[in-house]
Amino acid sequence: MPSEFDIIRQYFTLNEIRDDVVLGIGDDAAILTVPGNYQLVQSVDTLVAGVHFPTETSPEDIAYKALAVNLSDMAAMGAEPAWFTLAITLPNDDEKWLEAFSESLFNLARKYKVQLIGGDTTHGPLCISITINGFVPTGKALTRNTAQVTDKVYVSGTLGDAALALAAWQGQCLLDDASSNYLNEKLNRPTPQVELGLILRKYASACIDISDGLIADLGHITDNSQVGAKINFEKIPLSKEFKLNLTDDALIIPLVLSGGDDYQLCFTIPEKNIVEFEKNINVQVTCIGEVEKESGVRCIKNDTEINISEMGYQHFTND
Amino acid sequence: MPSEFDIIRQYFTLNEIRDDVVLGIGDDAAILTVPGNYQLVQSVDTLVAGVHFPTETSPEDIAYKALAVNLSDMAAMGAEPAWFTLAITLPNDDEKWLEAFSESLFNLARKYKVQLIGGDTTHGPLCISITINGFVPTGKALTRNTAQVTDKVYVSGTLGDAALALAAWQGQCLLDDASSNYLNEKLNRPTPQVELGLILRKYASACIDISDGLIADLGHITDNSQVGAKINFEKIPLSKEFKLNLTDDALIIPLVLSGGDDYQLCFTIPEKNIVEFEKNINVQVTCIGEVEKESGVRCIKNDTEINISEMGYQHFTND
Repeated sequence: MPSEFDIIRQYFTLNEIRDDVVLGIGDDAAILTVPGNYQLVQSVDTLVAGVHFPTETSPEDIAYKALAVNLSDMAAMGAEPAWFTLAITLPNDDEKWLEAFSESLFNLARKYKVQLIGGDTTHGPLCISITINGFVPTGKALTRNTAQVTDKVYVSGTLGDAALALAAWQGQCLLDDASSNYLNEKLNRPTPQVELGLILRKYASACIDISDGLIADLGHITDNSQVGAKINFEKIPLSKEFKLNLTDDALIIPLVLSGGDDYQLCFTIPEKNIVEFEKNINVQVTCIGEVEKESGVRCIKNDTEINISEMGYQHFTND
Repeated sequence: MPSEFDIIRQYFTLNEIRDDVVLGIGDDAAILTVPGNYQLVQSVDTLVAGVHFPTETSPEDIAYKALAVNLSDMAAMGAEPAWFTLAITLPNDDEKWLEAFSESLFNLARKYKVQLIGGDTTHGPLCISITINGFVPTGKALTRNTAQVTDKVYVSGTLGDAALALAAWQGQCLLDDASSNYLNEKLNRPTPQVELGLILRKYASACIDISDGLIADLGHITDNSQVGAKINFEKIPLSKEFKLNLTDDALIIPLVLSGGDDYQLCFTIPEKNIVEFEKNINVQVTCIGEVEKESGVRCIKNDTEINISEMGYQHFTND
């Protein structure tokens, strides 16, 4: 196996795209400039083979998702992503795999203007851990604990697509070819809502990204804000591919309410901001309910409350 | 297995010790204040069970070392450590293990006043990845690429202790009980030289921590600085426990020159700074050689150059 230095030099140093990286990969640590009047925002997310993705997933998709889920955390904070470190544990030195992985990683990094500033390559079962850094103007980050009663609850994009792709992959249902492509793209290559996050700094009272499922993640907002929420199932945006392939409520409801991996944003907007917010937004956002005083998240369908207890994100292996 | 939220809540949130952490664990990301006129210094290091430590290593020692090697990177940059994220992959939810791990982790964190600001717990083969953050006054970081010809080469502490403990653990030699305790402590609980790093900002021209072995790490300084170095084997500081247990040069030389895991600092001091540096230092530091124009690192013993080609750090599994 090539040494760690060889791997870093060969695959992970072609990424110098930011002026605020004073010193990048190659020393004991990177040196970075955080702009004045800004706060640093930092988060870590790990993907483990066989837990977060099937072992046969392509290196391109693994790299994309490993960085995308971290960019999504920046989006959820309203932060402008800047730098990341990569700790990658590899079972072997498959050069084709590494080449494909690093190319896909840097394609996404360039798209969002984020730079790899530190890496550690180790030998062992495949596992990718990324710590991402971004900035927000001091005091302007979007947190989970500041939703207020009467705020409206919104989500971006459509929900359930990634969960449906996963269900099909597990053999729980069949998809037509075109839908399969569309939905797999949603599962493997979710679009981190970074631009939306930046706009939300101006309008939203609280924000989270939907990684564990709508109910669980909205529940984090309401629990942390010591409020509750009521949402209307019929208002939840679904893709035409989702609706085309599923008609059975018994399958639809859990995928939409507790399917993870969509990486859309769920956020709350105070009533006074709604008109201006909806005027200034150019991505799909949908109001699905309202923040209430009573704790917990309730979901209404056909005027009846759905029993959503015990709903939560399941990794594909059920671990 | 308890959910990720339970694990984080139960074991990893009792660590609020810094005012510059605006928001710690519990949101999509942490929010942090970097002081004005300071640069951020960031690094990542991963420990994999069976590669970086024997699988039977105690959770206390694993936690200590996982954080200590990262603190050592801050020391090598002359940075004041501040915050860290922890990505931990666990094979199961052994609560006793987690309790011991987190207690040991936070003991060391408190000692160095560093705060855990983000965590991700995943299920899989044991692997710990820490990304650490620190500060330096702008422009004052210690790098590897600024050593100058005629600078003196120094190391802190004693070298080879960790490598000897590892060799004994592998059955390559026998140790008396007292030495075994002392040397195992050096292997499992290296002291990160953070205070020394802060002092070196004033005096040193370049610095690195010795994780891969003296020759390899000094070689990073000389290669990056486009210089070379000559060191004197007899000047390299050895512990009495090391000298007591080893008399065979064929074993001593590789352990001292290429034994990893000591986490002492190797640094270069311009001649003009030496008097003041040695006056202001209260830990063991030893001048072992000098920076030269000719590239590469040469080690002299009894007026003869030791053949040090091919020496480098070996993980205990030879991976």
